[in-house]
This record gives sequence, structure tokens and C-alpha cells, in this order.
Amino acid sequence: MGKIKTMILVLRNDISEQELSHILEKIKQLGFTPHISKGIKKTIIGLIGEQAERYREIFESIPGIESISEIELPFKLASREFKEDSTVININGVEIGGKEIILMAGPCAVESREMLLQVAREVKEGGAKILRGGAFKPRTSPYSFQGLGKEALLYLKEAKELTGLLVVTEVMKPEQVELVAEYADILQIGARNVQNFELLKEVGYSRKPVLLKRGIATTIKEWLMSAEYILSGGNYNVILCERGIRTFETATRFTLDLNCIPAVKKYSHLPIIVDPSHGTGVHDYISSMSKAAIACGADGLIIEVHPSPEDALSDGPQSLRPHEFKQLVQELRPIAEAVGRKL
Amino acid sequence: MGKIKTMILVLRNDISEQELSHILEKIKQLGFTPHISKGIKKTIIGLIGEQAERYREIFESIPGIESISEIELPFKLASREFKEDSTVININGVEIGGKEIILMAGPCAVESREMLLQVAREVKEGGAKILRGGAFKPRTSPYSFQGLGKEALLYLKEAKELTGLLVVTEVMKPEQVELVAEYADILQIGARNVQNFELLKEVGYSRKPVLLKRGIATTIKEWLMSAEYILSGGNYNVILCERGIRTFETATRFTLDLNCIPAVKKYSHLPIIVDPSHGTGVHDYISSMSKAAIACGADGLIIEVHPSPEDALSDGPQSLRPHEFKQLVQELRPIAEAVGRKL
Amino acid sequence: MGKIKTMILVLRNDISEQELSHILEKIKQLGFTPHISKGIKKTIIGLIGEQAERYREIFESIPGIESISEIELPFKLASREFKEDSTVININGVEIGGKEIILMAGPCAVESREMLLQVAREVKEGGAKILRGGAFKPRTSPYSFQGLGKEALLYLKEAKELTGLLVVTEVMKPEQVELVAEYADILQIGARNVQNFELLKEVGYSRKPVLLKRGIATTIKEWLMSAEYILSGGNYNVILCERGIRTFETATRFTLDLNCIPAVKKYSHLPIIVDPSHGTGVHDYISSMSKAAIACGADGLIIEVHPSPEDALSDGPQSLRPHEFKQLVQELRPIAEAVGRKL
Amino acid sequence: MGKIKTMILVLRNDISEQELSHILEKIKQLGFTPHISKGIKKTIIGLIGEQAERYREIFESIPGIESISEIELPFKLASREFKEDSTVININGVEIGGKEIILMAGPCAVESREMLLQVAREVKEGGAKILRGGAFKPRTSPYSFQGLGKEALLYLKEAKELTGLLVVTEVMKPEQVELVAEYADILQIGARNVQNFELLKEVGYSRKPVLLKRGIATTIKEWLMSAEYILSGGNYNVILCERGIRTFETATRFTLDLNCIPAVKKYSHLPIIVDPSHGTGVHDYISSMSKAAIACGADGLIIEVHPSPEDALSDGPQSLRPHEFKQLVQELRPIAEAVGRKL
Repeated sequence: MGKIKTMILVLRNDISEQELSHILEKIKQLGFTPHISKGIKKTIIGLIGEQAERYREIFESIPGIESISEIELPFKLASREFKEDSTVININGVEIGGKEIILMAGPCAVESREMLLQVAREVKEGGAKILRGGAFKPRTSPYSFQGLGKEALLYLKEAKELTGLLVVTEVMKPEQVELVAEYADILQIGARNVQNFELLKEVGYSRKPVLLKRGIATTIKEWLMSAEYILSGGNYNVILCERGIRTFETATRFTLDLNCIPAVKKYSHLPIIVDPSHGTGVHDYISSMSKAAIACGADGLIIEVHPSPEDALSDGPQSLRPHEFKQLVQELRPIAEAVGRKL
Repeated sequence: MGKIKTMILVLRNDISEQELSHILEKIKQLGFTPHISKGIKKTIIGLIGEQAERYREIFESIPGIESISEIELPFKLASREFKEDSTVININGVEIGGKEIILMAGPCAVESREMLLQVAREVKEGGAKILRGGAFKPRTSPYSFQGLGKEALLYLKEAKELTGLLVVTEVMKPEQVELVAEYADILQIGARNVQNFELLKEVGYSRKPVLLKRGIATTIKEWLMSAEYILSGGNYNVILCERGIRTFETATRFTLDLNCIPAVKKYSHLPIIVDPSHGTGVHDYISSMSKAAIACGADGLIIEVHPSPEDALSDGPQSLRPHEFKQLVQELRPIAEAVGRKL
Repeated sequence: MGKIKTMILVLRNDISEQELSHILEKIKQLGFTPHISKGIKKTIIGLIGEQAERYREIFESIPGIESISEIELPFKLASREFKEDSTVININGVEIGGKEIILMAGPCAVESREMLLQVAREVKEGGAKILRGGAFKPRTSPYSFQGLGKEALLYLKEAKELTGLLVVTEVMKPEQVELVAEYADILQIGARNVQNFELLKEVGYSRKPVLLKRGIATTIKEWLMSAEYILSGGNYNVILCERGIRTFETATRFTLDLNCIPAVKKYSHLPIIVDPSHGTGVHDYISSMSKAAIACGADGLIIEVHPSPEDALSDGPQSLRPHEFKQLVQELRPIAEAVGRKL
Repeated sequence: MGKIKTMILVLRNDISEQELSHILEKIKQLGFTPHISKGIKKTIIGLIGEQAERYREIFESIPGIESISEIELPFKLASREFKEDSTVININGVEIGGKEIILMAGPCAVESREMLLQVAREVKEGGAKILRGGAFKPRTSPYSFQGLGKEALLYLKEAKELTGLLVVTEVMKPEQVELVAEYADILQIGARNVQNFELLKEVGYSRKPVLLKRGIATTIKEWLMSAEYILSGGNYNVILCERGIRTFETATRFTLDLNCIPAVKKYSHLPIIVDPSHGTGVHDYISSMSKAAIACGADGLIIEVHPSPEDALSDGPQSLRPHEFKQLVQELRPIAEAVGRKL
């Protein structure tokens, strides 16, 4: 069994529609799925497969192709080699990966309708564009609160209608994807499922944007390989989310690894946001680490906000109160501007 | 929402069947599932739930109960407090957790019928009791060999019939459990799925023994919590498997953490085996670490054996050749005896 | 042997000089060294020792003392409980820990007189206040360049006279302290010596400010304990420096742990700076991580600058060129302002 | 500056003394220090230096040399390439690295004369050959017991005279080496000083055997580089000691990394022992991990023994009582025999 190669066909800028159709047809004829990447300067098509390189000669003689190259990195569609321009994901006008810093906020778990609607209104007021809230909750203990399930999805939908916020919520198993996709604008894959490949494949078949959290012991390369599972299924709308890695340090619950921001930006075109709530696990450090995240290039933040953190059913100690969230957004704005972004 | 408590009812040795029935009925009436643990000296019943302790008085006055206590650890059914005697899992006469060291061996992935049957015969000859072989393979890259799937299950069944070996193979998603359970004697949960709670719940409903691998960044406590997910579903046949944790050291692929053997034995009654192949990732260290594992109390080993490791579709560099496996078993025998076990 | 206690005597604001002298005399009489902390609101005296608490009653009756309390944390003099106001270290007018962000820059190792003088002029021009440069170099291999030693100290002195920059350089063994202190304004303790307690004691007896780098596997608590070694020797001028911890991630040489900035600020009054060069080990990430460090509250940066990184005798790949350093300072300025600092 | 090369001159078995002298003279003439390794089959001479390879031609024409090769690994004198046969260090008849498993035992710190003499007699009776006991103690806190210092060295000497045990004790700074070497048979370098290069150089100039503990975040390669510092000073008697690395797991104080035993044995000829007391930090796991260490090839163990661990001034919870130590030795014997060693 050979090493997987990825052949890149760079199209001529003056390619005709007919030529393009011909190329795509040829690719499918050979048994490959064509992955198209339209850049500002160039459009390219990626062919991924075991013997992709064997057909190089065929494409060399087809009109409309300027040049042919190969991607050496283990991740292909996720790489900057495949797509030079940074990906901007547009969901109903909210652009993730663009000039604007996007804030996602809300409670760790949806605990009740009233609480969710209250928090939704507050974070909207504060400047959030997307509402977070767990309906299905992965919990270390089988005896801990596991989320309200479908009931929570209904509340999220109501909150969305009420506030205009988009909704992101977690999906935990393949057969849940369809249900969650009905209610959510973004499907979240949690840190524990970053290498749950069956689930990755399933959301790869969906056309909903996916928020892919990094696992607590996942290298950046492995993480981009997990993104590749989703992209190779045809779903190109993947948002990465750094949420802390496990190290020897115990002063923080996890070690938020901001180094991954410039590293991901170097190797991949995908947008990346930061979760300072899970990443530190300490209420008092959320503000500082949010600022640092924006300063080093994150495209957004996902922050836990709860009206009374001390009563939260899950992850209270790392949640901001609504007024603290609003205060934080005020403080983030000049930093966003200092790095040429807006908020 | 209160902290989960576990109430332990220690039964009198002279309890009558009628008294026992009455107790079980009462437990169900109150909305709890009774978990029974029959020890050599005592039989106990565990009640797990949010307000379990509220009903203490009720049980204090019921005949047949000698004493009532509580489990403080976060894992309940998995703890030695719940079950003092070590669990021995008997599968068609093969006892895991008993006096005998049990060897599981076979290829990383089932690659073909011929190869599997050959390896099965060889490892049987060498002293293995259980055949390992992946049908569904979790791979970091979507472009790597993903396993033969159902075809492999058929080969495993054939190998079992031919050699009398039991079969262990991995299950990767909830809806696969039923299919895999038809062919396998033990369902394997891989390291990457150690906190795939939906999958844990599903195998908890099954009655097939489960081999639960530790995640690469899973603490011993979290691992026992994952076992608790399975036990609390009613499936008490869980075998733990240490397979290396991720550390800063790069001389080995992972750091096989043998310290977890005495730690697990202290806190839990569940049997535990060791995977020196994945744990080190280095062919040359498998023999030494197998010996160490037996010396410090492991109940068995799971070892990758491949007729020509250099051609393996997955994890070749960490596989033993059949004759090396046989040689290793010879060397393990005196160590097993030195610690009062047999092989 | 009892647990070490630290008794804190909070002085009355209207205490007379005579009363203060009496208290200090009493403390010495009892065999303790008094550590004085003058805050904006209050002045306190710390007594550290095995039976400090035994003498509580004595002090309760001495005039001039407002109240008596104890520090529970294992680090005493380094804690915010001992000294509420953040420490500002003034070296010839350069204030570390004050409103201004302080930049330290220069080559990893002093390689030649010409190179050092050139870099010194350039970083001064760029905005640095302190020149870094290794004279004695700790190297993993005994066969690697070990530094120019005393010769380098002379060049550093010359560079200082030429540019007005202060000088920070590493000291590697107790008997070197005196020599290095003659030439340097700040004594650097490298990451590998963070728990070289004999060296810490020696610089504790010096009155030169100390730059204490965090070890690659040192918890924040242990790090503050190492600072305590220096403080308890009577040298209160300790600057902490985060330089990356060792984790499983290999995309960066170390994982720069910015979470420690708000954590140290919470528990300690000592100033803290960040070393993005060693912390990431990747030239391309230095700029982003420098911005993040300022955004989350660091009091300064220490950055490697080399005129031709590709020829450096040590750590070339993580050095900025002089013009890159100047460019970076321009980009850092608006971030410093966004968090209420200046640069 | 060029990469350091190491040229290996393999001598002819029938080399004359005159030829050998000529070769050594030539080497010194060229400015190198010759390192001689006499193996069972071959004697080789290593030349380490920046341009060693430049002189290849010169040696090619000198009589008595069979062949010339180069060592590619970063550690040279510590490598099996330089010395194929495992090093056996003989100290007054006690052989470390030979067939016999060597036990070192005693208290963490020397606390009093009486206690030390009592423990010495007991561990001698139990089968130890070497007495451990800290005179100078590296402690995280400046307020913790720092050891009795020179007084403890006198007690160790007395215990040695009384029991015939050899003595190993820690040295913490370069200027202590001479003093400690007067009293100790083996100089211990603690984990925190594994990259205290000035200290390594100093013990490299000594001719006393050195016990070099691995640091808590030191890779095997870095550890062997630290050994290289000592060897390159001319002290070839280095014993490595694994004592646990820092990982995310908190069930043990450190993660004893037994994988390093076969790894070190593969890459180096130096003997290696294991410290299960510091390695686990848990009394109950010491026995199991001692067995595992012997089973996977360790040449010895260093175990903390204290008459009343609950009163120990340092590291009590990880000490065995004298009778537990004796019991353990009984249990280790059959394992040693199972792997072809004796005890």
C-alpha cells in the first residue's frame, strides 16, 4: 500500500468553463473526488488518493492547467499549500476568520429556559454574535448532570429567534448529528471527541459549519488531521478552537496553549478561536488570556457566561457573570484594533 | 443539585431469600437500581443516586442488613470499597484476573484471511488464549488504511473456530456494538474513545466483556470513571488496559506507565492488562516491558504479532514476529512464577 | 520538627521611630530576621521561622502593632499576602514592574566584540533598555560552544558604556557570582538552575537584581519557592521570567505558558517578564507571542536579536534580526497602550 | 563553527606497545585527549573535537590501527558505539553493572547518628551493599530541613566502618565535591542538578564514581549528554538512576519511567539503577515497581528506608520500614534469577 499523495492542479486564470468541466469530469472518471480551492490569485483543484501521482501525465496534457505540484504535509485540504488565502466562514452574515473578532458566549450547559434566554439577551447586548450552550454534555462521571438534551435544543432555538444570535452546541455521537443540525448553526465537536473518527466522518457529510476543539493531548498536527477528516468528507467549514492542553502545571486546570495560534495560521488556512474558560479553568485569568488570544491572532473567543456561576450545574468556577463579560468586551476592543482587527 | 452519594448495604451472612427479595424490591420502589457485589466474606448492595443517603433510615430498620456505609470516591462500582475481592472474568473457561497470566496476541489490523489464520495458529501455539486483530481501525489520517470492517470480523470468527482462541476486537461507534458483539468475545474500546461517553454507555448495555484502554492523557481516576460508565449500565465485566501515556519523552512513542498497575489494584477490583506494543512503540523494548508488567502485578498482556512487521499496514515497527512471541512467553514464565502466578 | 509559620506584624500608621526600633530589636533578640514590606497603605514586618507563632503573645502587647496574622502559603516573602503592592525594581532609573514595558534584547551568546557592539546599538535604537548576552553558556553538550567567559563580560561592559543600556547576563555557579556582579546590572539564573539551591542562596546574599527563569518542568508554586530562596537571603529584587515549559507538543520547542502571568500576578508581588525566543523556539512565532505577553500583563520581554541568525553559535533559529526587532517594537506599542501601559 | 565529530580508531588485536604509544602521542600532539575503551573483542580510542575528521588521513597511515569510523550520536563516550561491552564499576569488590543486582538503601536524609547506625545495620542485614543518606539536602522550600551537612558525613563514615557498607551521598555545588569525596564512595548528583553543568564538570575531574539521577523533565538523550559531561572530564564511572519524570498523572508523585531501562541499555554501556521511592512517592507501590525494575533489566535499586517513616524530616511517605525492606529483598530474589541475575 503506497503513501497517500496529493496532486495539486493550478488552473490558468483564463480557463474557460468548458475546460474546467472537462477537468472535473476527468478527475471523477479516474475515481477521485475533486476538491476545489478558489484563491484570490489562483484557483486550484486537489486530487487525493493512493496513486494520484500516477495520473500526472494525463493532466499535464489537458488544457486549462497551468502547473501541477504535490502536497507533502500529512494534512492536505487543511494546509496552506492547498489554500493560500485564509478561510472566512460566512454564516448568515457573521464572518468567522474575517477582519472582525467573533465572540461566542453563553452558559456551559443549558440548565433552564429562563436562564438561557436571560444569558442570551445579556451576551447579545455585550457584543456576542453567537450563543453557546450545551444540550448534550460529556461528563467525566456517569452520575453528573448530562444535559437537558432535546429540550435544550428547543430553548436554544427560541433564544436564537429572540435575539438573532447564531447557535453553537455540541454533538456527541454520529446518530445525533442530524437532530442537532436542525437546531444549531454550528456543530461543536468536544475535546474528548477530537479523535472520535466516526463522529468526524459524520459531520464531514453535513454542510453545517463545525467547531472542532483541540484534545487535551492532541498535537497541532494531529488536530489538523482531525480537521482533514471533516474536510475530506466535503465539509470545508471547519473552525478550530484551542481550549487548553494537559501539562504538569496544576495552578490552572489546563494550560491554554496560545502558541498554537501562530502555528495553525502558518500551516493552515482554517480560522481558529480560543476558549479561555476551559483553557484556564480559573475565573480570574479569563480576562487576561482573552486579551492575549486576540493579540496573537485568534479570530474569536468562546466564553462561558452564567448569571450565578456559584450555582452552575457544570463548570461554574470558570464562568463570567454577564456584567463581567460586557466589561471584558470593552477592554478587548482596543487590543483588536491594535492588531488591525475590529470588534 | 446535590453531590452523588453511594450507600452501601452490607447484608447479614444469614439473610434469607425472602429478606433479600424484600430489600431489592424496596430499592426499586425508591427508584434506584440495586448493584450487587458478592464477596468471599460478605455480600453488599450498592445504591447510587442523588439522594441515596436520605433513605438511610428506611434501610436501617429492614431485616437482613448488617450495616450501612457510604463510598466517598468518585468512582463507586469500580472501587474496592464496593467490591473487596478482585474481579475474575470467566469467558468460556479463560479467566482474566485469576491466578493465570492471560496473553492476547495478534496483528494490529486484520489485513487478510491467510495472514490472520497463520498468526492465530502461531500465537495459539505460543501460549496465547485470546486473538487480537482490528477490523475497524481508528487512524490519525483519513487517508490511512481504515480496516477491512465486517470482512475482518468473518475472518476472526473463522480463526476462532480453527484455533479455539477467544477474540477481542475494537468497536468505534455506538451503532457498531451489536454487530461486533456477534463476532467478538471481548469488545475493545480504544484509547481515543476512553471518554466517548455515548460509546461507553452502549457497551454498558451489552453483556460482552469490555477491554477498556486508557487514553494517552487520562488520569487513573478519570479512567476508572470511564469504567464506571460501563459498570453503571449493568455490565460488570470490564478489563482495564494500560497502553502508554503521552509525556515529553520522545525515545519511546508513548511512556508505558506501569505505576498504574499497583495504583489500579489499590483502588479498584477490576483486572488490568498491559499493551507493551503501543505503550513503547519500539520493537526492542517489548520484551523488557512485558516482563516488568508481569512482575508488578498485571493480569495479562496484549501484544502485536505480525509475520512480517516491515510490511504491516499499521504499526509494524512495534510488532513481534511469531517466533519472537514464542520466545518471549518462555522468558515470561519464570517471572510469572516468581510473583506467584502461572502462565 | 514543626511546620514553618510566618507571622505578619501590621504596623500602625502612626508608629513612632522609637516604637519601630523596639520592635526590630525584639525580633532580633528572639533570633529571627525581620523582613520589612512598606506598602502604600501599610507597613508590615514578616517573621519567618519554626516557632514564630509561639511569640505571638509577646508582640500583641508591644505598642505600634495594629494587628498580627499569618501567611498560609508555602512562599512567604514572595506572596501578595506579605506585600500587597506590586514590586517595582529601579535600576539606574529603569523601572521593572512599573507602568513602562521594559525590553531586554541582544544575542543568545556574546560571540565577538564587534557583533555585540553592533547589536547593542541596534536594540538601543529599537527601544530596548537592557542588553542581554551570554558570557557563560549552559549547553546540553559538553562539546558545544560554552561562551567566551570573562572576555564577554568585558565586551558587555564596553557595550554598556557605549549605549547606556543596562546589562543582564547569566551566572552558573556560586563562585561566579562575585565576578559577574562586577559587570552585570542583573544576574540571570537560567532555567536549568531554577532549583540549584546553592546558587540561589548565593545570589540571595548579593544585592544585585536577579532575573529568575522558570524551569521547563517547574510549577508556578515551586518557582515562587525558588524566588523565596533569594528573598529570604535578603535580596528583594527578583524579576521572574517565563521561558516555556516542556509538554508533549513538538510544533514549538517549548510551550510558552502565558497563563502563568495572571497566576503569578495573583499570588505574588514580583515583576514578571516573558522570553518568547526560548519559549517558542520558532522565529515566526516570536512576534505574535510577544504581543500576547504584553496583552495579558507581562512587565517586559527578553528577546534574542542577532545580526545573522543563520550563523549564530547558539539558538540562531529563534533570534530576530535587528530590523525585525525594531518593527516588532512598533507593533507592540499600541498593545501596551491598550492595556494601560507604555513602551 | 563545525559540528562536533568523534573519530573512532579501532586498534589491531596484535598491536605492539610501541605502536600504541606512538598513536597516543600523535593524538596529544594534535591537541586531542585520547579516550580508550578496552572491549572484550576490540580496543578502541576515541578522539572528540571540532575537526577530528580532518586528521583521518594521518591515522589511516599509522600502524596498529585496523579501521577508522565515526560516532553519529550526540553523546560519544556514553554510547555503545564507543564501548560495546556494558560497563561494570567495581568499588571495593562491589560490582555495579555486573551479574549481581546491587541494592542501595537508607534514609532520605541523615537525621541523627543513632538513627543512621540503626538503619545501616538493618539494611546491611537485609542485603544492601550500599548505604544512602543525604547530608546536604536540596529542598523546594528554604525553610525546610536542609540536612546536617558535614556532621552527617561523619556519621556516614562511622556507619561504613561499622557495617562495611559503601556510602553514596549527594553533592550540591562544585566546591563541595572535594569534601564529600573524602567521605563518600559514590557522589550523587540529584535530579535538580542534572543540567548543573558546572557541577557535572567538577565531578568529571574527580575519580569517585558518580550516581547521576535523571531530571524530572530530562529526555534520555539529554540525560546521556549530562553523563557525557562527566565522562569527557575523564571520569568513566557513571551510574545512571531513573527516579521518575513529571507527567500529568497525579496518582503518583512522579511517573517512574521504566521504559528508559531498555532504551538506555540500547544506546549506552553505562549501568542504570532505579529509585522507586522518589519515582512513585507512594509507599504501597515501591514493592511492585522494584520488581518491575529488576524484571526489565535494571542493575540495581536505591530505596529509602526509615525506622519510622511517619516521623521522617523528609519524604517519609515514600520510605519502607526496615522489616519491609527485608521482606522486599526476599521477593526480589526469584525475579532476579528469572532474568538471569543474582541478588
